[in-house]
Amino acid sequence: MEEPRLHFIGVLHCDISGRQDAPRNYTVSDRVGILEIYPQYREGLDGIVPGQTIVVLFWLHKSARDILKVYPRGDRSRGLHGVFSTRSPIRPNPIALSELNVLAIDGNRLEVSGLDIIDGTPIIDIKKKIDC
Amino acid sequence: MEEPRLHFIGVLHCDISGRQDAPRNYTVSDRVGILEIYPQYREGLDGIVPGQTIVVLFWLHKSARDILKVYPRGDRSRGLHGVFSTRSPIRPNPIALSELNVLAIDGNRLEVSGLDIIDGTPIIDIKKKIDC
Repeated sequence: MEEPRLHFIGVLHCDISGRQDAPRNYTVSDRVGILEIYPQYREGLDGIVPGQTIVVLFWLHKSARDILKVYPRGDRSRGLHGVFSTRSPIRPNPIALSELNVLAIDGNRLEVSGLDIIDGTPIIDIKKKIDC
Repeated sequence: MEEPRLHFIGVLHCDISGRQDAPRNYTVSDRVGILEIYPQYREGLDGIVPGQTIVVLFWLHKSARDILKVYPRGDRSRGLHGVFSTRSPIRPNPIALSELNVLAIDGNRLEVSGLDIIDGTPIIDIKKKIDC
Protein backbone atom coordinates (compact mmCIF):
# COMPACT_ATOMS: atom_id res chain seq x y z
CA MET A 1 0.00 0.00 0.00
CA GLU A 2 1.52 3.32 -1.03
CA GLU A 3 2.07 5.81 1.77
CA PRO A 4 -0.34 8.71 1.19
CA ARG A 5 0.31 12.41 0.92
CA LEU A 6 -1.49 14.73 3.35
CA HIS A 7 -3.56 17.70 2.24
CA PHE A 8 -3.16 20.89 4.26
CA ILE A 9 -6.69 22.19 4.91
CA GLY A 10 -5.58 25.46 6.50
CA VAL A 11 -3.03 27.26 8.64
CA LEU A 12 -2.83 28.55 12.21
CA HIS A 13 -2.35 32.25 12.99
CA CYS A 14 -1.36 33.09 16.58
CA ASP A 15 1.30 34.90 18.60
CA ILE A 16 3.18 31.75 19.69
CA SER A 17 6.43 32.24 17.81
CA GLY A 18 8.52 29.25 18.96
CA ARG A 19 8.48 26.09 21.01
CA GLN A 20 9.91 27.95 24.04
CA ASP A 21 6.85 30.20 24.03
CA ALA A 22 4.30 27.38 23.61
CA PRO A 23 2.25 26.21 26.61
CA ARG A 24 2.98 22.63 27.65
CA ASN A 25 -0.33 21.42 26.20
CA TYR A 26 -3.88 22.60 25.46
CA THR A 27 -5.19 21.77 28.95
CA VAL A 28 -3.01 24.51 30.47
CA SER A 29 -3.32 27.10 27.69
CA ASP A 30 -5.53 30.17 27.35
CA ARG A 31 -3.77 31.38 24.18
CA VAL A 32 -6.06 32.60 21.42
CA GLY A 33 -5.60 32.47 17.64
CA ILE A 34 -7.24 31.93 14.27
CA LEU A 35 -7.65 28.70 12.31
CA GLU A 36 -7.74 29.87 8.69
CA ILE A 37 -9.35 27.12 6.62
CA TYR A 38 -8.61 27.32 2.89
CA PRO A 39 -11.68 28.31 0.82
CA GLN A 40 -11.93 24.96 -0.96
CA TYR A 41 -12.51 23.24 2.43
CA ARG A 42 -14.82 25.84 4.02
CA GLU A 43 -17.97 23.81 3.42
CA GLY A 44 -16.59 21.13 5.75
CA LEU A 45 -16.97 23.54 8.68
CA ASP A 46 -20.79 23.64 8.49
CA GLY A 47 -22.24 22.56 11.82
CA ILE A 48 -19.42 23.86 14.03
CA VAL A 49 -20.77 26.43 16.48
CA PRO A 50 -19.21 28.92 18.93
CA GLY A 51 -18.87 27.48 22.43
CA GLN A 52 -18.05 24.02 21.09
CA THR A 53 -14.84 22.10 21.79
CA ILE A 54 -13.18 20.74 18.65
CA VAL A 55 -10.29 18.32 18.16
CA VAL A 56 -7.72 19.79 15.78
CA LEU A 57 -4.85 17.90 14.14
CA PHE A 58 -1.79 19.92 13.09
CA TRP A 59 1.24 18.92 11.02
CA LEU A 60 4.34 20.02 12.98
CA HIS A 61 6.38 20.90 9.92
CA LYS A 62 9.46 21.88 11.94
CA SER A 63 9.71 18.61 13.91
CA ALA A 64 12.25 15.85 13.34
CA ARG A 65 10.79 12.57 12.04
CA ASP A 66 13.81 10.28 12.45
CA ILE A 67 14.16 10.13 16.25
CA LEU A 68 12.43 7.43 18.35
CA LYS A 69 13.67 8.21 21.89
CA VAL A 70 13.40 11.57 23.64
CA TYR A 71 13.80 13.20 27.04
CA PRO A 72 10.20 14.26 27.82
CA ARG A 73 10.13 18.09 27.91
CA GLY A 74 13.93 18.04 27.76
CA ASP A 75 14.16 16.75 31.35
CA ARG A 76 17.16 14.38 31.36
CA SER A 77 16.51 13.26 34.94
CA ARG A 78 13.52 11.23 33.74
CA GLY A 79 15.58 9.25 31.20
CA LEU A 80 14.89 8.50 27.54
CA HIS A 81 11.34 7.55 26.56
CA GLY A 82 9.98 6.06 23.35
CA VAL A 83 8.24 8.85 21.46
CA PHE A 84 4.97 6.87 21.32
CA SER A 85 4.77 6.93 25.15
CA THR A 86 4.98 10.77 25.12
CA ARG A 87 3.36 13.85 23.58
CA SER A 88 6.69 14.97 22.12
CA PRO A 89 6.40 16.86 18.79
CA ILE A 90 9.20 14.60 17.55
CA ARG A 91 7.79 11.38 16.01
CA PRO A 92 7.71 9.59 12.63
CA ASN A 93 4.52 11.46 11.69
CA PRO A 94 4.69 14.75 13.61
CA ILE A 95 0.95 15.21 14.10
CA ALA A 96 -0.21 17.23 17.12
CA LEU A 97 -3.67 16.91 18.62
CA SER A 98 -5.23 19.83 20.49
CA GLU A 99 -8.68 20.25 21.97
CA LEU A 100 -9.66 23.88 21.33
CA ASN A 101 -12.62 26.03 22.28
CA VAL A 102 -14.41 27.80 19.43
CA LEU A 103 -14.90 31.46 20.35
CA ALA A 104 -16.26 32.77 17.05
CA ILE A 105 -16.67 31.80 13.40
CA ASP A 106 -16.37 34.18 10.44
CA GLY A 107 -16.68 32.32 7.14
CA ASN A 108 -13.52 30.24 6.81
CA ARG A 109 -11.88 31.63 9.98
CA LEU A 110 -12.37 30.07 13.42
CA GLU A 111 -11.25 32.01 16.47
CA VAL A 112 -10.13 29.47 19.08
CA SER A 113 -8.57 29.34 22.55
CA GLY A 114 -6.35 26.72 24.16
CA LEU A 115 -3.51 26.90 21.64
CA ASP A 116 -0.20 25.10 22.27
CA ILE A 117 1.03 25.25 18.65
CA ILE A 118 3.27 27.78 16.91
CA ASP A 119 2.17 30.38 14.37
CA GLY A 120 2.17 29.20 10.74
CA THR A 121 1.61 25.51 11.48
CA PRO A 122 -0.46 23.65 8.85
CA ILE A 123 -3.86 22.23 9.89
CA ILE A 124 -4.75 18.74 8.60
CA ASP A 125 -8.06 17.87 10.31
CA ILE A 126 -10.86 19.06 12.61
CA LYS A 127 -13.24 16.67 14.42
CA LYS A 128 -16.11 16.85 16.84
CA LYS A 129 -14.95 16.01 20.37
CA ILE A 130 -16.35 12.83 21.91
CA ASP A 131 -17.19 13.45 25.56
CA CYS A 132 -14.97 11.59 27.98
CA MET B 1 5.41 24.17 1.67
CA GLU B 2 5.24 20.73 0.08
CA GLU B 3 2.53 18.42 1.40
CA PRO B 4 4.27 15.59 3.26
CA ARG B 5 3.97 11.86 2.86
CA LEU B 6 2.92 9.80 5.88
CA HIS B 7 4.90 6.84 7.18
CA PHE B 8 2.89 3.79 8.23
CA ILE B 9 4.32 2.69 11.60
CA GLY B 10 2.27 -0.49 11.84
CA VAL B 11 -1.01 -2.23 11.11
CA LEU B 12 -4.11 -3.25 13.07
CA HIS B 13 -5.16 -6.89 13.42
CA CYS B 14 -8.70 -7.50 14.71
CA ASP B 15 -11.96 -9.26 13.82
CA ILE B 16 -13.80 -6.11 12.66
CA SER B 17 -14.14 -6.86 8.97
CA GLY B 18 -16.12 -3.88 7.68
CA ARG B 19 -17.68 -0.58 8.64
CA GLN B 20 -21.04 -2.25 9.33
CA ASP B 21 -19.38 -4.38 11.99
CA ALA B 22 -17.47 -1.49 13.64
CA PRO B 23 -18.70 -0.02 16.94
CA ARG B 24 -19.84 3.61 16.64
CA ASN B 25 -16.72 4.82 18.44
CA TYR B 26 -14.14 3.73 21.01
CA THR B 27 -16.20 4.87 24.01
CA VAL B 28 -18.81 2.17 23.30
CA SER B 29 -16.43 -0.61 22.17
CA ASP B 30 -15.01 -3.61 24.01
CA ARG B 31 -13.48 -5.10 20.86
CA VAL B 32 -9.95 -6.46 21.26
CA GLY B 33 -7.11 -6.65 18.73
CA ILE B 34 -3.40 -6.28 18.12
CA LEU B 35 -1.43 -3.19 17.10
CA GLU B 36 1.54 -4.63 15.19
CA ILE B 37 4.27 -1.98 15.11
CA TYR B 38 6.88 -2.49 12.41
CA PRO B 39 10.29 -3.51 13.82
CA GLN B 40 12.03 -0.30 12.76
CA TYR B 41 9.66 1.70 15.02
CA ARG B 42 9.58 -0.69 18.03
CA GLU B 43 11.96 1.40 20.11
CA GLY B 44 9.37 4.20 20.10
CA LEU B 45 7.08 2.03 22.27
CA ASP B 46 9.42 2.07 25.28
CA GLY B 47 7.56 3.44 28.29
CA ILE B 48 4.10 2.20 27.32
CA VAL B 49 2.75 -0.12 30.03
CA PRO B 50 -0.25 -2.47 30.35
CA GLY B 51 -3.25 -0.78 31.94
CA GLN B 52 -2.49 2.52 30.24
CA THR B 53 -4.82 4.37 27.86
CA ILE B 54 -3.14 5.43 24.63
CA VAL B 55 -4.30 7.68 21.80
CA VAL B 56 -3.88 5.93 18.44
CA LEU B 57 -4.11 7.57 15.02
CA PHE B 58 -5.08 5.37 12.08
CA TRP B 59 -5.09 6.09 8.34
CA LEU B 60 -8.51 5.03 7.01
CA HIS B 61 -7.20 3.85 3.67
CA LYS B 62 -10.66 2.90 2.36
CA SER B 63 -12.29 6.29 3.02
CA ALA B 64 -13.17 8.90 0.42
CA ARG B 65 -11.14 12.14 0.61
CA ASP B 66 -13.11 14.33 -1.80
CA ILE B 67 -16.43 14.75 0.08
CA LEU B 68 -17.04 17.66 2.49
CA LYS B 69 -20.69 17.10 3.52
CA VAL B 70 -22.10 13.89 5.00
CA TYR B 71 -25.16 12.51 6.74
CA PRO B 72 -23.79 11.65 10.19
CA ARG B 73 -23.96 7.85 10.61
CA GLY B 74 -26.00 7.74 7.40
CA ASP B 75 -29.03 9.28 9.16
CA ARG B 76 -30.66 11.51 6.53
CA SER B 77 -33.18 12.93 9.01
CA ARG B 78 -30.40 14.99 10.62
CA GLY B 79 -29.42 16.69 7.35
CA LEU B 80 -26.02 17.20 5.77
CA HIS B 81 -23.13 18.20 8.05
CA GLY B 82 -19.68 19.49 7.23
CA VAL B 83 -17.24 16.64 7.80
CA PHE B 84 -15.18 18.72 10.24
CA SER B 85 -18.21 18.96 12.59
CA THR B 86 -18.46 15.13 12.69
CA ARG B 87 -16.40 12.00 13.38
CA SER B 88 -17.14 10.65 9.89
CA PRO B 89 -14.33 8.54 8.39
CA ILE B 90 -14.82 10.59 5.21
CA ARG B 91 -12.63 13.73 5.25
CA PRO B 92 -9.74 15.27 3.26
CA ASN B 93 -7.22 13.45 5.48
CA PRO B 94 -9.02 10.31 6.68
CA ILE B 95 -7.29 10.04 10.05
CA ALA B 96 -9.17 8.28 12.87
CA LEU B 97 -8.42 8.86 16.53
CA SER B 98 -9.17 6.15 19.09
CA GLU B 99 -8.42 5.98 22.80
CA LEU B 100 -7.47 2.37 23.50
CA ASN B 101 -6.65 0.41 26.63
CA VAL B 102 -3.36 -1.49 26.61
CA LEU B 103 -3.98 -5.06 27.81
CA ALA B 104 -0.53 -6.56 27.15
CA ILE B 105 2.73 -5.86 25.32
CA ASP B 106 4.88 -8.46 23.58
CA GLY B 107 7.84 -6.83 21.81
CA ASN B 108 6.37 -4.91 18.89
CA ARG B 109 2.78 -6.13 19.45
CA LEU B 110 0.31 -4.30 21.70
CA GLU B 111 -2.91 -6.04 22.67
CA VAL B 112 -5.58 -3.37 23.04
CA SER B 113 -9.31 -3.03 23.73
CA GLY B 114 -11.82 -0.39 22.62
CA LEU B 115 -11.38 -0.87 18.88
CA ASP B 116 -13.71 0.84 16.39
CA ILE B 117 -11.46 0.37 13.33
CA ILE B 118 -11.41 -2.37 10.69
CA ASP B 119 -8.79 -5.09 10.35
CA GLY B 120 -5.79 -4.20 8.19
CA THR B 121 -5.93 -0.44 8.80
CA PRO B 122 -2.52 1.29 8.84
CA ILE B 123 -1.35 2.92 12.11
CA ILE B 124 0.33 6.32 11.84
CA ASP B 125 0.87 7.45 15.46
CA ILE B 126 0.55 6.56 19.15
CA LYS B 127 0.51 9.16 21.96
CA LYS B 128 0.16 9.28 25.70
CA LYS B 129 -3.35 10.33 26.70
CA ILE B 130 -3.69 13.67 28.47
CA ASP B 131 -6.21 13.35 31.30
CA CYS B 132 -9.41 15.28 30.72
